Amino acid sequence: MTIFFKILLVLLIPVLAEAQHPNTFFTKKEAAEVKKNLALYPLLNKSFIDIKKDVDYWVGKDVDVPFPKDPAGGYTHDKHKANYTLMFNSGILYNLTGDAKYATLVKTMMLKYAALNPTLKNHPEATSSSPGRIFWQALNDANWMVYAGMAYDLVYNSLTLAERKKIEDGAFKPEVDYFTTELKDWFNLIHNHAVWATAGVGIIGIATNNLNYIDMALKGTEKDGKTGFYALMDNLFSPDGYYTEGPYYTRYAILPYAVFANALNNSNPSLKIFEHRDRILQKALLTCLQQTNIDGTFYPFNDALKEKDYTSNELVTAINIFWNVYGPDENSLFVAKKQNRVMLNNGGTAIAAAISKNKNVPAYFQYKSFESGDGVNGKEGGVSIFRSGKNADLSSLLFKYTSHGLSHGHFDKLGIMLYDKGNEIITNYGSVRFIGVEQKYGGRYLPENKKYAGQTIAHNTIVMDETSHFNGKEEIAEKFHSEKLFSSFANSAVQVVAAKEDNAYPGTHMQRTLYMLDLPGGNKMIADIFNVRSENQHQYDLPFQYSGSLIGTTVKYKANAKKQEPLGKKNGYQYLWNVASGSVADTLVQLTFLNEHTYYTVSSLVQDTAQVFYTRTGANDPDFNLRNEPAFIIRKKGQDQSFISVIEIHGKFDPVYEFSSNAYPSVKQIKLLQNDDDYTVAEIMIGDKKLMIAQSNNNTDTKQVHSAMGLSWIGPFTVLFNNKKL
Amino acid sequence: MTIFFKILLVLLIPVLAEAQHPNTFFTKKEAAEVKKNLALYPLLNKSFIDIKKDVDYWVGKDVDVPFPKDPAGGYTHDKHKANYTLMFNSGILYNLTGDAKYATLVKTMMLKYAALNPTLKNHPEATSSSPGRIFWQALNDANWMVYAGMAYDLVYNSLTLAERKKIEDGAFKPEVDYFTTELKDWFNLIHNHAVWATAGVGIIGIATNNLNYIDMALKGTEKDGKTGFYALMDNLFSPDGYYTEGPYYTRYAILPYAVFANALNNSNPSLKIFEHRDRILQKALLTCLQQTNIDGTFYPFNDALKEKDYTSNELVTAINIFWNVYGPDENSLFVAKKQNRVMLNNGGTAIAAAISKNKNVPAYFQYKSFESGDGVNGKEGGVSIFRSGKNADLSSLLFKYTSHGLSHGHFDKLGIMLYDKGNEIITNYGSVRFIGVEQKYGGRYLPENKKYAGQTIAHNTIVMDETSHFNGKEEIAEKFHSEKLFSSFANSAVQVVAAKEDNAYPGTHMQRTLYMLDLPGGNKMIADIFNVRSENQHQYDLPFQYSGSLIGTTVKYKANAKKQEPLGKKNGYQYLWNVASGSVADTLVQLTFLNEHTYYTVSSLVQDTAQVFYTRTGANDPDFNLRNEPAFIIRKKGQDQSFISVIEIHGKFDPVYEFSSNAYPSVKQIKLLQNDDDYTVAEIMIGDKKLMIAQSNNNTDTKQVHSAMGLSWIGPFTVLFNNKKL
Repeated sequence: MTIFFKILLVLLIPVLAEAQHPNTFFTKKEAAEVKKNLALYPLLNKSFIDIKKDVDYWVGKDVDVPFPKDPAGGYTHDKHKANYTLMFNSGILYNLTGDAKYATLVKTMMLKYAALNPTLKNHPEATSSSPGRIFWQALNDANWMVYAGMAYDLVYNSLTLAERKKIEDGAFKPEVDYFTTELKDWFNLIHNHAVWATAGVGIIGIATNNLNYIDMALKGTEKDGKTGFYALMDNLFSPDGYYTEGPYYTRYAILPYAVFANALNNSNPSLKIFEHRDRILQKALLTCLQQTNIDGTFYPFNDALKEKDYTSNELVTAINIFWNVYGPDENSLFVAKKQNRVMLNNGGTAIAAAISKNKNVPAYFQYKSFESGDGVNGKEGGVSIFRSGKNADLSSLLFKYTSHGLSHGHFDKLGIMLYDKGNEIITNYGSVRFIGVEQKYGGRYLPENKKYAGQTIAHNTIVMDETSHFNGKEEIAEKFHSEKLFSSFANSAVQVVAAKEDNAYPGTHMQRTLYMLDLPGGNKMIADIFNVRSENQHQYDLPFQYSGSLIGTTVKYKANAKKQEPLGKKNGYQYLWNVASGSVADTLVQLTFLNEHTYYTVSSLVQDTAQVFYTRTGANDPDFNLRNEPAFIIRKKGQDQSFISVIEIHGKFDPVYEFSSNAYPSVKQIKLLQNDDDYTVAEIMIGDKKLMIAQSNNNTDTKQVHSAMGLSWIGPFTVLFNNKKL
Repeated sequence: MTIFFKILLVLLIPVLAEAQHPNTFFTKKEAAEVKKNLALYPLLNKSFIDIKKDVDYWVGKDVDVPFPKDPAGGYTHDKHKANYTLMFNSGILYNLTGDAKYATLVKTMMLKYAALNPTLKNHPEATSSSPGRIFWQALNDANWMVYAGMAYDLVYNSLTLAERKKIEDGAFKPEVDYFTTELKDWFNLIHNHAVWATAGVGIIGIATNNLNYIDMALKGTEKDGKTGFYALMDNLFSPDGYYTEGPYYTRYAILPYAVFANALNNSNPSLKIFEHRDRILQKALLTCLQQTNIDGTFYPFNDALKEKDYTSNELVTAINIFWNVYGPDENSLFVAKKQNRVMLNNGGTAIAAAISKNKNVPAYFQYKSFESGDGVNGKEGGVSIFRSGKNADLSSLLFKYTSHGLSHGHFDKLGIMLYDKGNEIITNYGSVRFIGVEQKYGGRYLPENKKYAGQTIAHNTIVMDETSHFNGKEEIAEKFHSEKLFSSFANSAVQVVAAKEDNAYPGTHMQRTLYMLDLPGGNKMIADIFNVRSENQHQYDLPFQYSGSLIGTTVKYKANAKKQEPLGKKNGYQYLWNVASGSVADTLVQLTFLNEHTYYTVSSLVQDTAQVFYTRTGANDPDFNLRNEPAFIIRKKGQDQSFISVIEIHGKFDPVYEFSSNAYPSVKQIKLLQNDDDYTVAEIMIGDKKLMIAQSNNNTDTKQVHSAMGLSWIGPFTVLFNNKKL
């Protein structure tokens, strides 16, 4: 008997024996508690009134349950989406007010679905491998199941036996059957879609007292525990709570995790589902919150819409449910205040109370330097976030050396991003998608998403021979991950992470070490030592996608001012206009740009020769799907190459006071004193002061004594400024 | 004896007789009043502490007064700029604290200028026709004179006679002499530079009890009153307070107006300088505040930096001085709160008191539909601002039919702009300039400013034969102005303005009528009837510069996806990449774009044939001086032509909730039932409802009865929706 089966027995006996309703969204006792506090806390009251206003508009009206026809953004899609929210909210109101009209509204709509659903075949706009019935993709049907399941549970007590049977057989069974038979391969995936699918089937199981449904939800259709909800808790997150698709998709997955776990916990608290895997769900939440910009938007690791932030419904749900389970958390409270609404459950009540008492609501989210391993064991690479400064003046450097990230992964091994003062400075494109905009391919991912945004050139890492990592093939990329060599965050003046990648290009070793430095005197900069060693001659491109106005550059370039053509023909290069280019030799390439009120300069050493390209996205984009964004690309040739760069955050520009300060970079020279398999020693002139960085390239032992170029040090690196160790 | 001379006699007798100091920035009595209140009002206190911190840093230090060398943004420029502010602030502190160290700081610096200034020739970086001495342009020298003059006055009482003589002869006389002899043509201009120049000479005159200086400041170097400060008050503004260069330059000019008027008022209150020309200075302030976006940035009429907002020092100064003179004003208080600092004078004290008592500080600036005549008599055309909605949901349509606007004027007769919810929707480029950024041509206007931003194609009005209005010649443009035909703002559902332009292209009449409509049911849209009649065949381009992502268009276009070339060769066209184009006939051209969370659609009737171009700025821009912004251009040919368009503000896009509503335009068809010299009658289908617009094209009599196409109405226009008069 597997562990899962044992757990199931514990779980299911009370479900069958008692079948107390409601027990998905909240219990009767919890509802009474919320009701008691409704008038006490303004945010709770506001949230109640908002829902009531929306629902009251429909009470007594004949709500349309249309035959499915339109893709995302179209009428039938949006209507069914609105319908499940309406049923769910009306179910909550029934429990909080006792007013039968809310139960009637749910019942009437449910009966319509009971009539509709048995007639449905695959959606006419279905294009994915997991077509939906009510919606174009099954994922949206799963959303419907989660909310419709809870809605049904919320009004269960008001229904006659005959009504229950009609709804269970008509509205739910066809969907559950479809998911667990025709779509069972999809249902049994280890993937965020499956979290929704299992939550949908599981919640319907709890709501309808159907042991078989719950069983399949928890253990997969084969009931062997290899798939299903527990397997998804065990396998989708690293032990730190990092989700391999990135925080934008953690956000998406966390809702079904939270609501199904909550329903399981209500049905059988002794299961301690929230404690599972050392509180993995709490870790997932806290990790994805740390992986946000100070405006609350999620860092765009892999496919991600950059507008999406933590005020989204998914995180309202997770924060409210987890607050009740895991207790108060200062950062969650900060986010809850930004969300400006709560759920009508115990967690929401407690948060509304905390906010109304102004108890410890911090003025800023408390970000910190933060690392997450990737993979089930946390050993498949990961991400490091360097942080410097705080609150509105926070700088965040992101370093990604994860595994691929499933179907939403990007080919961006050892890629970086930089945020400063809430702005994207060194950027990733994010996703090519206008979500919810019907005119734009029904709101789905656009073709340029894979063809441009996912390609290596759209990121800030080395591209060999104009070919993406793993030749742009997901099935190969999925087999590998980068590897962290070491990291050090103990000294806030010198934060360091090194990682390597040996598989993105066969026979090629890439190793990147990033230093985030706070120098005495206040200079803030990033030193970036990026070496590549290969068995053969290649072309290496290192792009810097940047956001801002180009203010100055040391490169003598030729602008393609009268005619623009794409930089390349494939692997994303076809989307870049070649705006200007220049050849350089034995020099320091510098580019200064202005983003809002701050200057940024990239200084990069060219020892032999290089070409520099200034590009802008938008070529080969006849449908105007891309934003038009600049980058500059340093191109070197050879077998082994190195890109030694410094990214400076400097100066101030005030257009209202018409004032600029420190508009010029302080980096005057970069010399590479040694660079081989053993050591890299770089000398960087900051004004008239010398910054020395020395690192071991093959030994990460923190006790090891090294010496090179007249320097001696212990451990993998040392940084000296003005002859003093930092 | 001229009126000016009489006024002068009244003014100057007390100055000579008494010579009470200080009497420029404030009087002894006013200083005592401020001192008394310093601790009472937090904003006053904060402003005092801010200044004190800045000044205290320098007390006892040897402040550099360098030999002038650098252009704007460079060290010597910024140092001298910082120096005059430091002297001024230190002078204020001397009066508020009585501490001699502040007077000593001013004295020491003044004596350095007294040594430096007599040695100066024209600045080595001077490029303008009015070269400076301390700075690259004389305008900056005038800034210095205004503040150094006040600083001197503020510490006058602490100086010995010998020190006074040294400073007056060394620091001030060379500058005043230079302005009033070598630069006298410039000093005597009717132009914003001259406001600064006369204020500088006049304030020094008051500070040094020099009747001759004051005389020249008020009446010009020839002392005939044809130029000088009074002439500048009489001739730079329209009677409404509109300044022909636009609000961005009102902002710049208003500071010297305010401080010199204040100094004159302190020297001789009986002069009633602030009452001059029916309180023209107050009108100038209120007009320029109405000509701002809800984020406080000034509308970019003519040359204007779009980042500049009303928190700038100039408006702090004007609002604080005027508050004391003209009394409380709700909008000024709103702006003062945003400014978050006050001057240490009576006005600043009163504002700080009002804010600390939270007395009537409104949550939003109260914008209203607003018209200003241009020209001394207010009869040289003007601007109309249509407003709809309020607070965060304000929509503002701008219609410009002014005279040219001096050297900062743009060739944009009958041009429009649209702002919505604080965002630029139909845009003007503004200025091509990075102010204060030395790397960008010393922060000066860049060549593309005249060559692109000032040209007609950079605006939203008709361009004939790819040639700008008045052939792009300022000297011709200055002779003419457009003419308003009528306007009507009484009905908030139908706001209308019509204007014509007969001189931009010889032998060509252009007439544009704009309707801002709030339809029953909540549709908000602008109907734009733009007719052009010429003696010959021409090509007419109507550009729509827009800000947003192109979501959909009805035009079948060919994208220049693999090669981009400029749209034209001159008059600004050379800066536009021809991104895509298409030919259309007998159709409704529609283009929908998304800006933040709202959709916007331009629907424009094509009766015969037209070409449509999709462009983006950035061609022929080797120095990366331009932003890369989209436009679409409708091109028609013929002798007479008409552009009948509707701009809709519609729908909602929520990327966090992944929701779109009303993403499609409601305009389904536009028919032109009649369009000739007498009448235009247009039928516009809004969904299945009919919007009828009928207007007389040659009669603006509000009593006149008209009939055309079966409609009868009184006055210049009528608008019917669903057969009911709006």
